[in-house]
Amino acid sequence: MKKEVHPLEQIFHPKSIAVFGASNKVTTMGTYQLLNIIGSGFKGRIYPIHPKLDEVQGLKAYKSVLDLPEVPDLALITIRSEAVIQVFEELGKKGCKRAIVISGGFKEIGEQGKKRERKLIEVAKKYGIRFVGPNCIGIINPWLPINTTMYPYELKPGYIGMASHSGTYVTQVLPWLKKLGIGYAKAVSLGNEASIDIVDAIQYYGEDEKVKAIALYVEGIRRPREFLEVAKKVSKKKPIVALYVGGTKAGARSGQSHTGAMSGPDEIYDGVFKQCGIIRAPDVASLYEWAFALATQPPLLGRRIAICTHSGGPATSLADACERIGFEVPEFSLALQKRIQEQIPETGSARNPVDITFSVDLEALYYRLPELILSSGEVDGVILHGIEGESYYYHFIDVAPKTFNFPLEEMKKYLEAVFKKLAELPHKFSKPIVASSFMGREDSAVAQVQDSGIPCYPTPDRAVLAMKALYLRGKFTS
Amino acid sequence: MKKEVHPLEQIFHPKSIAVFGASNKVTTMGTYQLLNIIGSGFKGRIYPIHPKLDEVQGLKAYKSVLDLPEVPDLALITIRSEAVIQVFEELGKKGCKRAIVISGGFKEIGEQGKKRERKLIEVAKKYGIRFVGPNCIGIINPWLPINTTMYPYELKPGYIGMASHSGTYVTQVLPWLKKLGIGYAKAVSLGNEASIDIVDAIQYYGEDEKVKAIALYVEGIRRPREFLEVAKKVSKKKPIVALYVGGTKAGARSGQSHTGAMSGPDEIYDGVFKQCGIIRAPDVASLYEWAFALATQPPLLGRRIAICTHSGGPATSLADACERIGFEVPEFSLALQKRIQEQIPETGSARNPVDITFSVDLEALYYRLPELILSSGEVDGVILHGIEGESYYYHFIDVAPKTFNFPLEEMKKYLEAVFKKLAELPHKFSKPIVASSFMGREDSAVAQVQDSGIPCYPTPDRAVLAMKALYLRGKFTS
Repeated sequence: MKKEVHPLEQIFHPKSIAVFGASNKVTTMGTYQLLNIIGSGFKGRIYPIHPKLDEVQGLKAYKSVLDLPEVPDLALITIRSEAVIQVFEELGKKGCKRAIVISGGFKEIGEQGKKRERKLIEVAKKYGIRFVGPNCIGIINPWLPINTTMYPYELKPGYIGMASHSGTYVTQVLPWLKKLGIGYAKAVSLGNEASIDIVDAIQYYGEDEKVKAIALYVEGIRRPREFLEVAKKVSKKKPIVALYVGGTKAGARSGQSHTGAMSGPDEIYDGVFKQCGIIRAPDVASLYEWAFALATQPPLLGRRIAICTHSGGPATSLADACERIGFEVPEFSLALQKRIQEQIPETGSARNPVDITFSVDLEALYYRLPELILSSGEVDGVILHGIEGESYYYHFIDVAPKTFNFPLEEMKKYLEAVFKKLAELPHKFSKPIVASSFMGREDSAVAQVQDSGIPCYPTPDRAVLAMKALYLRGKFTS
Repeated sequence: MKKEVHPLEQIFHPKSIAVFGASNKVTTMGTYQLLNIIGSGFKGRIYPIHPKLDEVQGLKAYKSVLDLPEVPDLALITIRSEAVIQVFEELGKKGCKRAIVISGGFKEIGEQGKKRERKLIEVAKKYGIRFVGPNCIGIINPWLPINTTMYPYELKPGYIGMASHSGTYVTQVLPWLKKLGIGYAKAVSLGNEASIDIVDAIQYYGEDEKVKAIALYVEGIRRPREFLEVAKKVSKKKPIVALYVGGTKAGARSGQSHTGAMSGPDEIYDGVFKQCGIIRAPDVASLYEWAFALATQPPLLGRRIAICTHSGGPATSLADACERIGFEVPEFSLALQKRIQEQIPETGSARNPVDITFSVDLEALYYRLPELILSSGEVDGVILHGIEGESYYYHFIDVAPKTFNFPLEEMKKYLEAVFKKLAELPHKFSKPIVASSFMGREDSAVAQVQDSGIPCYPTPDRAVLAMKALYLRGKFTS
């Protein structure tokens, strides 16, 4: 028997797409979505459907899906809610079986909307249509590439499979994710989950090789039994991290207005997550930051952390933050201290935290010391603070152009090679490395580290928290 | 009797400065510092002191401070530790009474260094020299302007008085602070505190009108009695927030290598901070983020928070985060809901959180709704998520240049006026507003909000945490 193709596999990989709701005006969401499909570099065929226009954004437009020269793999629908059911009828007649319904005005608005959503489901079932939404924002698959949302995706394809009850946490969060170098493998905004829900997404991501970790933004789970069953199975293979926001009175009330979600008490969700091996994120930032660490790093299998940096403040505050969270920052053996001392200036400290202070030997901090420390077996993971490359010098080139003749381009190339070696260490030793830097991707060293697969966070605290996520994963897997 | 001028007043406002340790090489820290003094726009006279060179970075150099045509207000010393005492002797003879000693190699390195530091203090006392350091990174006063550190300060002058036992938390943190629009009123890296210590800094900032809130990075307090006395007095006038990192075993050990700090158990510091009304920051990021909120916003005098946004996910997760931290997100009275509904689309929610959903009426979210809500008296503060201006559109101008003819420059001007009005509300109603946005200062709306004095953080969680700091301040002042 042929294995059935998962409906999300088809939705994430269309060869042709019918777009309802785009026009030549820039005040409608549908137009932004069409522009994003074009702008994302989608290689398939795009068919705008418009009752009046012959051309939309430079593409030939059709009056109805029934007029198309082929059966489209996917329909993207961003029209007023009253008209969606009629469109589904036509999709059904044409034979199009996959859709994304962006339109709101369904279950989330009360009785009338609930009725409309029931009718939509009925028509979909009649024709075998499976769909994402309604009241959602679409999907992003940077590997194809396709982006049906109204937000540009300007990052490289990444490792995270995102499934979200909020469109914002798929799209509007992108400018922030870009700064952290955190990309999606795939992302879906689930909306009201009338047909495809979070359970389907977890199941699909579980089988998807591009997805290395799964991130969930959860306002409420509609199929708890199936969720438990599927998440349990998937989390054995790959890490799942979830932010659940329906456990407070205010969160539940707000979620109800948002997607008509059925929330439940925190304790119940805690229990469900624990049973499934799902790591619960304490806040929005951690959801993505943790998923990135979990997608790129091996789990942390003990509590012993080494800290490597070039300045005393971060050394001390990282040591303090580690111990406060339940980690140990063990003083190294004298033998290891001696070997470290050979690599660092006299002013430095080799005890753990390792503070190399001022040194021009960049490879020491960014590769040789982590390698030495991990190979010693005295710790279970390394936190590295102070990734920085050329950006510091730009300012001085302006101030003293005659004095500064640093070969910055060569430095970039040199560091890129160093970070490539660094990124191999976690897998070689099965021990995680996470980093932090007050620089962002405007400094090429930070971009290189992140792109090589070592998470690099904007403050030391965030690196410690990400290490905690890896520890929780380690506790589950070992 | 004439009131004595605080030594830090003179150190932050020199008219002339002698610089020891700068050369024409770019491998020495002293050179970077000299370049920063020049680059910061310092208007006074700069005298490089160099044993051999006649000119340093384009400035006439002198063999000794004794050769200078005047008594310099300040000496900046970045030479090997063995030579510092001799320089102090010459400063004394010349009559220069203020110095910053960057050089390390004193108390922090053990017995030999302790001896050297005692000698330095002895010579300083002999001549009446008061100094910052040794083993520090200098001071920044963007209002003068002067920056004696080796890091560029590229922000506008701000409101925070920073005193730190770590140079990194004065300087290397700057690229990150820049992204949050958080500027210093003044900053001092205290190093080993051989002459001027954290108590002096708090005392000075307490009297300085430019400083609206004080931020402290603390590895250990050397004069607990005086600290208590001074901080108690100052925190009645302005908020103080502190990150203390010496309370764990690992933090204490690391701090000792760093500045030879005397740390103590967490509970004792908690007690001291509480007695002084100092708010304890839980992590590095909060130290600055909280100080910015405390410097710009009135305290939060109750637990009732309103949430205003344009998307359901942030509405729900903010509501959840607020309640989780101990705030209430009360459902508004029907009367207030009705007045809100008049301002937002039908698809929106007026209950609290207010979710305006998609609306082109930017003034509603960014001014009229916060005004309406604060004037109702139904809440004690407002969190506003989703500050964004023109940056969203740039991408589409590239994709569809013909379609997009938005007057983006006019939009910027329009928003600037709106945010100016928004920034007046907290003071008008004595109730704080804090914001968040996944956009950063690359979007001019975020920059405008931050520069108008409303903190705008990169994720919603950080806004909730900043509100907590304002609540703690409120509990202390009321």
